[in-house]
Amino acid sequence: MSKPRLGIAMIGYAFMGRVHSQAWRSVNRFFDLPAEVDKTVLCGRSEVALKEAAATLGWAETATDWRALLERDDIDVIDICTPGSSHAEIAVAALEAGKHVLCEKPLANTLAEAEAMTAAADAARGRGVRSMVGFNYRRVPALAFARQLIADGRLGTIRHVRAHYLQDWIVDPDFPLVWRLRKEVAGSGALGDIGAHIADLAQYLVDDHITEVTALMETFVRERPLAGESSGLSASAGGAATGEVTVDDAALFLARFGGGAIGTFEATRFATGRKNAMGLEINGARGSIAFDFESMNELWFHDHTLDPAEAGARRILVTEETHPYLAAWWPPGHVLGYEHTFTHEMRDFVEAVATGVDPRPSFADGLQVQRVLDAVETSAAEGRWQAVER
Amino acid sequence: MSKPRLGIAMIGYAFMGRVHSQAWRSVNRFFDLPAEVDKTVLCGRSEVALKEAAATLGWAETATDWRALLERDDIDVIDICTPGSSHAEIAVAALEAGKHVLCEKPLANTLAEAEAMTAAADAARGRGVRSMVGFNYRRVPALAFARQLIADGRLGTIRHVRAHYLQDWIVDPDFPLVWRLRKEVAGSGALGDIGAHIADLAQYLVDDHITEVTALMETFVRERPLAGESSGLSASAGGAATGEVTVDDAALFLARFGGGAIGTFEATRFATGRKNAMGLEINGARGSIAFDFESMNELWFHDHTLDPAEAGARRILVTEETHPYLAAWWPPGHVLGYEHTFTHEMRDFVEAVATGVDPRPSFADGLQVQRVLDAVETSAAEGRWQAVER
Amino acid sequence: MSKPRLGIAMIGYAFMGRVHSQAWRSVNRFFDLPAEVDKTVLCGRSEVALKEAAATLGWAETATDWRALLERDDIDVIDICTPGSSHAEIAVAALEAGKHVLCEKPLANTLAEAEAMTAAADAARGRGVRSMVGFNYRRVPALAFARQLIADGRLGTIRHVRAHYLQDWIVDPDFPLVWRLRKEVAGSGALGDIGAHIADLAQYLVDDHITEVTALMETFVRERPLAGESSGLSASAGGAATGEVTVDDAALFLARFGGGAIGTFEATRFATGRKNAMGLEINGARGSIAFDFESMNELWFHDHTLDPAEAGARRILVTEETHPYLAAWWPPGHVLGYEHTFTHEMRDFVEAVATGVDPRPSFADGLQVQRVLDAVETSAAEGRWQAVER
Amino acid sequence: MSKPRLGIAMIGYAFMGRVHSQAWRSVNRFFDLPAEVDKTVLCGRSEVALKEAAATLGWAETATDWRALLERDDIDVIDICTPGSSHAEIAVAALEAGKHVLCEKPLANTLAEAEAMTAAADAARGRGVRSMVGFNYRRVPALAFARQLIADGRLGTIRHVRAHYLQDWIVDPDFPLVWRLRKEVAGSGALGDIGAHIADLAQYLVDDHITEVTALMETFVRERPLAGESSGLSASAGGAATGEVTVDDAALFLARFGGGAIGTFEATRFATGRKNAMGLEINGARGSIAFDFESMNELWFHDHTLDPAEAGARRILVTEETHPYLAAWWPPGHVLGYEHTFTHEMRDFVEAVATGVDPRPSFADGLQVQRVLDAVETSAAEGRWQAVER
Repeated sequence: MSKPRLGIAMIGYAFMGRVHSQAWRSVNRFFDLPAEVDKTVLCGRSEVALKEAAATLGWAETATDWRALLERDDIDVIDICTPGSSHAEIAVAALEAGKHVLCEKPLANTLAEAEAMTAAADAARGRGVRSMVGFNYRRVPALAFARQLIADGRLGTIRHVRAHYLQDWIVDPDFPLVWRLRKEVAGSGALGDIGAHIADLAQYLVDDHITEVTALMETFVRERPLAGESSGLSASAGGAATGEVTVDDAALFLARFGGGAIGTFEATRFATGRKNAMGLEINGARGSIAFDFESMNELWFHDHTLDPAEAGARRILVTEETHPYLAAWWPPGHVLGYEHTFTHEMRDFVEAVATGVDPRPSFADGLQVQRVLDAVETSAAEGRWQAVER
Repeated sequence: MSKPRLGIAMIGYAFMGRVHSQAWRSVNRFFDLPAEVDKTVLCGRSEVALKEAAATLGWAETATDWRALLERDDIDVIDICTPGSSHAEIAVAALEAGKHVLCEKPLANTLAEAEAMTAAADAARGRGVRSMVGFNYRRVPALAFARQLIADGRLGTIRHVRAHYLQDWIVDPDFPLVWRLRKEVAGSGALGDIGAHIADLAQYLVDDHITEVTALMETFVRERPLAGESSGLSASAGGAATGEVTVDDAALFLARFGGGAIGTFEATRFATGRKNAMGLEINGARGSIAFDFESMNELWFHDHTLDPAEAGARRILVTEETHPYLAAWWPPGHVLGYEHTFTHEMRDFVEAVATGVDPRPSFADGLQVQRVLDAVETSAAEGRWQAVER
Repeated sequence: MSKPRLGIAMIGYAFMGRVHSQAWRSVNRFFDLPAEVDKTVLCGRSEVALKEAAATLGWAETATDWRALLERDDIDVIDICTPGSSHAEIAVAALEAGKHVLCEKPLANTLAEAEAMTAAADAARGRGVRSMVGFNYRRVPALAFARQLIADGRLGTIRHVRAHYLQDWIVDPDFPLVWRLRKEVAGSGALGDIGAHIADLAQYLVDDHITEVTALMETFVRERPLAGESSGLSASAGGAATGEVTVDDAALFLARFGGGAIGTFEATRFATGRKNAMGLEINGARGSIAFDFESMNELWFHDHTLDPAEAGARRILVTEETHPYLAAWWPPGHVLGYEHTFTHEMRDFVEAVATGVDPRPSFADGLQVQRVLDAVETSAAEGRWQAVER
Repeated sequence: MSKPRLGIAMIGYAFMGRVHSQAWRSVNRFFDLPAEVDKTVLCGRSEVALKEAAATLGWAETATDWRALLERDDIDVIDICTPGSSHAEIAVAALEAGKHVLCEKPLANTLAEAEAMTAAADAARGRGVRSMVGFNYRRVPALAFARQLIADGRLGTIRHVRAHYLQDWIVDPDFPLVWRLRKEVAGSGALGDIGAHIADLAQYLVDDHITEVTALMETFVRERPLAGESSGLSASAGGAATGEVTVDDAALFLARFGGGAIGTFEATRFATGRKNAMGLEINGARGSIAFDFESMNELWFHDHTLDPAEAGARRILVTEETHPYLAAWWPPGHVLGYEHTFTHEMRDFVEAVATGVDPRPSFADGLQVQRVLDAVETSAAEGRWQAVER
């Protein structure tokens, strides 16, 4: 009568690890799912810090060798929260070992790695092994609802996608050279870190693919102090020595979609005053939606089929129990926060794993986003439009 | 074939005189009306300043004796832009002389004066002489449209009226004792100057009367430097001498309406950071509207009959040609400003006069507002609910 | 070396019980506190539902007799999440038994009960037993930060407090007669449920007391279908029978504060389109703040000491690590939600208990709010200003 | 002692002619200028419509031959409000005839024409003949103030310019083929009509030049009914026949500025729900500004030099008397509208002409914008970055 249990092993315990922990901790408390999760093992490199993190974040055990986890029967899921440079190696091995994999975005730092991961995911699928890439913003209720509206034809033919992801945490030239600013670890800068989210979301929301892009990438501050301590997106300098910033501070691109829509994408860490302004405006022949994550409980919807005298963008507070995911939470107007997007992600992942269906976004979806980002880099380097590989 | 002409004589040329001048100047240029106005005479006390004002504001002649104007055949309309203390004398005489009267609000400084003016207006009506009180905010297109929505039943039974008029121009205790802060000239402070507008608008929008009130009036700064020069709402001190502020800085009241709605009214000149925040939110069983003059081209409308998942306050940009007054102006989104409310007022006044119908708000409407304000003063003085005289 | 543990017994597991559970679950995961909490016992009346709730919400044990809990050594804290009618009995007994008490607001349904609870809290304090009333909105980071700004003198002398708490969940006359609409259980309607929050917050933010009020209370829909199932603020009708609504649908009052400020308070469940719009605007001589819970991560601050050409209400996204409570959470712009206010409440409560200081808001604070509400009811009934008992 | 007079002849009396008329009518009434304007002649092709327009718009005379005007001594200024295809011919002739010229934007439909006009303006300058192109949005007080802030270094090094001009008046595929949709008259579509404004404004605000662009242009609806009657931006179809749309519905481009900033520009007539959303966000190392014309009285300014806990975009209501142009108008909070931008334009033009200085934007400024637009068209056609000619 009791539910099957899913043992989770999470690798990495920095920013993403903290928020994943809260999501794993909460998911069965709010959602009635076919399986119950156990926060079985927290895995990392530094034993001391790891023990402390496991205690704080509430994991039963710790481990420093992720490969050993793949042999344990009490581990069903590998949750990859490490920087992008290690995603491929871990994910491929885990899938081959028959572990379901939830992998943070971006899927990988290189296209080759992403392709290998997707191939591994495809092979594993045949053995009932599931995989998903963690584009958590798909699980913002307002965006999940936006997708419904668009799928229901409420926006009509899509004409424009205007997407931005604006932050300002490195505007200060004395902000240190953290790992997110080093290409060998992070793969790219604003492009892969935040541009990946809007590339994914835009395509997800309008259910269409970006086919070609023209792009511009810029690094405004090219030399920074070496990093000392860091946590989340904050950090302190480690001394007087400096190093080269090897990723983009900002990446802009124009896009064409397969269905005829056009788009503008802006990812930057230099939009002074913007903290986590991930937003989209989508214009269709019958209506428009607009969203900004800093006001994540709101979706703006303009219904162009109304009498023009009465039409206007309406602020839907996406906290009704009929909105996606909301029946699990609080009464209308009692708003949700950032971490809930991860709880929703775990909800969908657990349900998919427990019921034997493939969760989305799949590794193939993650690969497709990587291909968009790759086309952006090529276009920026070569100064011309670049088609996105299919 | 040419249109009849209406000769206007305007008394007073301060803030209200300037904006009325622009409205008289513009009204026939944008609206196709049955009469054409002439800015015939500007009337005031100080001959030198008057000549300069007439040249600047574009009036054909000047006069220092308003009584003499009443005998001139080329004057059809007396436009009263003086402080409230002189409204009754001028208006009554003008009406008796057969001149149409447009009188700035508040109608008068005392109830007795307002009653005399209303009686004069009633008597004059029989002789085809028209009168109107200048509650210009009724002619904000967004509010005129709000009234239509409410009249059409789109809000259902009205439950709440939440009205505020917030300014901050006298927050500084060194701001001088201008005429608007002296009871003998202004009648009252925030109450009559700005509270009158929201008392009028609230009743106008919901087409109902306030029947009783409980109120609070406060003067935060009771002594101020005597005034030197002033214009509009700005002024400079005239020296070291001070005088007593004899009007209210803020007036708050709760109200009951005849139809069962309840209301909150806030008029203050001490809402730091608010410049001309005249706003209303009206909640009914089927919907709500909200408005704030600082964003005067927007009306927010919540249609509660929609599916809750899709409902939300929508921002209607009231610049469509089907919106009240808008066919005369610019394409959608090319917004209007404060002065246009007066051009619309003159439009309605000229049309009423030329076609022989009574314009609204009538002097009786102005008197009714005075009665509300009087009940507020009584309630505040006596510390209990006070019925509004009918 | 391990931390002391606090055993929690929570009574009630409806809306408040669910959110308290999440807060108890999370508090040690994000805050480094001198004690660790155990979710030891969930207590309620219906054994079956209770077991299910305990499993869902993650409590170790269940109990149906709250009195028995008072004798257990492994229970340190009684967390009261029941309707107001049972608060006094439980809280007084718990305090007498030496248990720390966290009691949901309103403190009690009657002044006499609130006084008895406060007396019990005062007596218990001498024995090192702590008590706190759960006005969670004090722990909205934006409001905690607003209090800092005001305490630092950034607003100068306070002139106005404009507070509202607007909901619309019972606008539909067919919404059933849930317990919150029955005086014998809920004590009052909008007044005690939501008006209590703004009465507390207003006084807390400006650090002053309301001394007198004039009020209006209204019940728009006086008869409703009897209730069937309900959860949170949603419910379904239980059949054709109807019953009388014995509480207020809306309560409005004007107030005077000891320090000279004036205030407007509006609590209603009939503000169509408003879901949980708990907001305050506070105007002082040097600046203003504004807040609305539906955008709970934002505080608007107008600094009136700036050059007027540059001044304006600024939207502070209260997600910086230097903001109250925020160092525990996510990077800037990664917003928090409703439930976090409870996690912060538990954080402050646990710290106070573990370090032997009295947490705020105390039962005396809760009693003072009840006295304000009592004055409101008296004023509304008698049609005159009513002083608040000290 | 009386002021010199400037005789104005305006050519064209459609949308632009109407708003120019109101500006000429108002400019001396609000601004104390060294010359007084006369609305001497209205010039157009259709005699009947012209007479009616002159009466409505308040011009003293009419004329159907603009060349004849160039010989009249009582005409000092030629104000060109015709479609772009006739700008060059009229402007060059007028300048050669010694008439000051105010020419609506875009300066011309082709680069060759714009170059000829600029050459004529340069030649005329030596003879004391002035010329200006009518980018009215430079005279939005909020934008003039933004330029001051940026010039004063308040934004520091500029990093990003995010500009958009969004309309929706041709979303309906049945909207007819008006002149603005025909290349031979309009030159281009969204690009020249509205994109020109943001290209000009962006460069004006940051006082820098766009040096290269990569662009995308799209026509979503390629066939439309032939046009019947039209006015402003509204029109009705003239029958069943259709014709080809020969201009762009939307034009997007990325840009690099000489000083290192990067930019995004979006001009579209298909942003459903946006009426006249001309907006810019500019991010610098020390701060940011944001603006949208639909709320034209507001400028958002984020001062990044403040303590992060207190920083945030502040809404400056640009209606203080110390703001550009505002001393002439109403008290704070009494907002301005679209037409005032033209009154300000005429103010600056008249002052420049009367005092013998060159007004800005000059024809050279207009030409530079044309060069940007030309680079956009080339880039869009050739699928690569295109440098802007200097």
